[in-house]
Amino acid sequence: MQQLDAQFMQQALDLAQRGAFSAAPNPLVGCVLVRDNEIVGQGWHERPGEPHAEVYALREAAQLARGATAYVTLEPCSHHGRTPPCADALIAAGVARVVIAMQDPNPLVAGEGITRLRAAGIEVSVGVLEQAARKLNRGFISRMERQRPWLRLKMAMSLDGRTALANGQSQWITGAEARRDVHAYRAQCGAILTSARTVIMDQARMTARHPQAQRQPLRVVLDRQQQLRPEHDFFAITSPVLRVVDGEDKVENHWPEHVSTLVLPATSGRLPLRALFSKLAELEINDIWTECGAELAGALVAAELVDEWIVYVAPKLLGDSSRGVLQLPVFQELVQAPELRYESFTQLGEDLKICARPRFPAGGADRGEVQS
Amino acid sequence: MQQLDAQFMQQALDLAQRGAFSAAPNPLVGCVLVRDNEIVGQGWHERPGEPHAEVYALREAAQLARGATAYVTLEPCSHHGRTPPCADALIAAGVARVVIAMQDPNPLVAGEGITRLRAAGIEVSVGVLEQAARKLNRGFISRMERQRPWLRLKMAMSLDGRTALANGQSQWITGAEARRDVHAYRAQCGAILTSARTVIMDQARMTARHPQAQRQPLRVVLDRQQQLRPEHDFFAITSPVLRVVDGEDKVENHWPEHVSTLVLPATSGRLPLRALFSKLAELEINDIWTECGAELAGALVAAELVDEWIVYVAPKLLGDSSRGVLQLPVFQELVQAPELRYESFTQLGEDLKICARPRFPAGGADRGEVQS
Repeated sequence: MQQLDAQFMQQALDLAQRGAFSAAPNPLVGCVLVRDNEIVGQGWHERPGEPHAEVYALREAAQLARGATAYVTLEPCSHHGRTPPCADALIAAGVARVVIAMQDPNPLVAGEGITRLRAAGIEVSVGVLEQAARKLNRGFISRMERQRPWLRLKMAMSLDGRTALANGQSQWITGAEARRDVHAYRAQCGAILTSARTVIMDQARMTARHPQAQRQPLRVVLDRQQQLRPEHDFFAITSPVLRVVDGEDKVENHWPEHVSTLVLPATSGRLPLRALFSKLAELEINDIWTECGAELAGALVAAELVDEWIVYVAPKLLGDSSRGVLQLPVFQELVQAPELRYESFTQLGEDLKICARPRFPAGGADRGEVQS
Repeated sequence: MQQLDAQFMQQALDLAQRGAFSAAPNPLVGCVLVRDNEIVGQGWHERPGEPHAEVYALREAAQLARGATAYVTLEPCSHHGRTPPCADALIAAGVARVVIAMQDPNPLVAGEGITRLRAAGIEVSVGVLEQAARKLNRGFISRMERQRPWLRLKMAMSLDGRTALANGQSQWITGAEARRDVHAYRAQCGAILTSARTVIMDQARMTARHPQAQRQPLRVVLDRQQQLRPEHDFFAITSPVLRVVDGEDKVENHWPEHVSTLVLPATSGRLPLRALFSKLAELEINDIWTECGAELAGALVAAELVDEWIVYVAPKLLGDSSRGVLQLPVFQELVQAPELRYESFTQLGEDLKICARPRFPAGGADRGEVQS
């Protein structure tokens, strides 16, 4: 049964993945209803306000739900939100057993759905493919458990760790497939984080240009020194922008309506990143995708705020006179250097993509994601 | 038949590989004798002066060689060297068909063995798994076709492309498995190339410390400025050393017997690397394994003398103040940057190993090694 449970849960996880471009700020959830080892209903959560995965699966199964086993990637909800509680729907349909990949990460409600199902006499198993389920919703879990979004830092560099020539030329270090991959991350995140310097130097717009993109992420730009003007290309795109500055505007600018301003007093000449991320969590941002220069990247690393590195390594050599990727404090000992662990290596066109995590993650977002 | 041919040739290639730590300066060669789809004899070349792969396979097959098919990873020799010609031995044994992965790369003898076999009425097929066979003997082929050894450049760095802290600390950036891999390369190469600076800074001995090591490579150290003294640890090990300097010794040193000196006049303040490599080819060095700092590494890259990059990437971040891996000229345009193509990615312990080749290799050593 264990193997069958894992197999059907994997199908539920695959279904959940279909909401990747639309479900936020809700979690990705998939559900499979199985009777006599055959799938009789399946569903996934597509977008906020629309029914949960379980509802779609129950609708498809209709009468066949009675006595069936439900595989759900996340604990069925027990509260009346935008939709009625799924735990009640499963009970009403006469489901005999519910297999759940992981509890609701919201500490305030975790376990309530399970309790309600068990009280109705339903057999409940929890923890099947939990690690994969947590990985699927890293952002949502982070927001629930740590009250800050999951932060991915993009680095694009040559094999010798350089992002641009000494003269600043950096366009197209990586190839088309790597760039498509970047746009997929942009389209799936809740917010893109960047710096005024990157916006100015790269004339970046930081929009998601991807065939599956269904909406634009919030573009968050750190502009402590108020270098940005409404005339930059970045603001010509009308998707929402959050300017982060450390005091009232020094110059009177006429910011268009899609640009909001957040004032966060700087400490030691730096904008308070943790305070910003709490604010973004309040705005229901699950995932932050960061594209920036060596200075902000280094600040994020040094503050232990990076949850995941997505590194595109082009098969080129730029040499030591070229620009580096990460400004960090000068270390006296190698043990001071941040340590990561690799999660995956993928060839994308001619480039290599490396996914890595902190070796010793801070905070609680890694519960259940055991190292393999 | 094509599929069977490839299958038996693969077995011959696997056998050839067994000579990796001992066959140089000879090529790695494997041979399989097949009758009625069953292997009746097999052999590989173990070390210079000992019989060739075909001889071992024929001995094992004895009478069963008559009418058999021989799979050989390299064209059987036709000349009397340290052993009698293998082409003659195959003819005398009554072999019916000979399948050859690749011709002899020595332009002076290529095809003679094949001609002799055909003249004796034997059916000969050439080119089965040729690419793999060429990869197996990159060094030998390079020496034969280009009159210089195949050069592998090792780089060991952090994920952000740094080899050492600003203060020089670099020991154990990579882990034990990566270091074992380095020692396997050292034990299989004909010569290790390094610089006086690396010998001094890292107190390096550059010996092969590997369980399968059967002998020590020639250690070639570039010391244009005559910074090395006999007292360095490097010279305490009695395996052969070749000191390369650009003029007569300025200081009278008593070099031990295992240290030879090669004087090569420098041009523009650099030792002439191509002349050195011609000399090493004359000394029957097939493969050079290079471990050095950013200066020599950059000179080799800029001179287009690197045939293969072996890059160990530790999951650490050292930051921009740390030392880079490659000194190259300042480029004005990205198109000036050397381009590579990746051959493989492997996780070694916690580290990543990347093998790469020049994207547009100079010279003829790539004939037949088609890009996949």
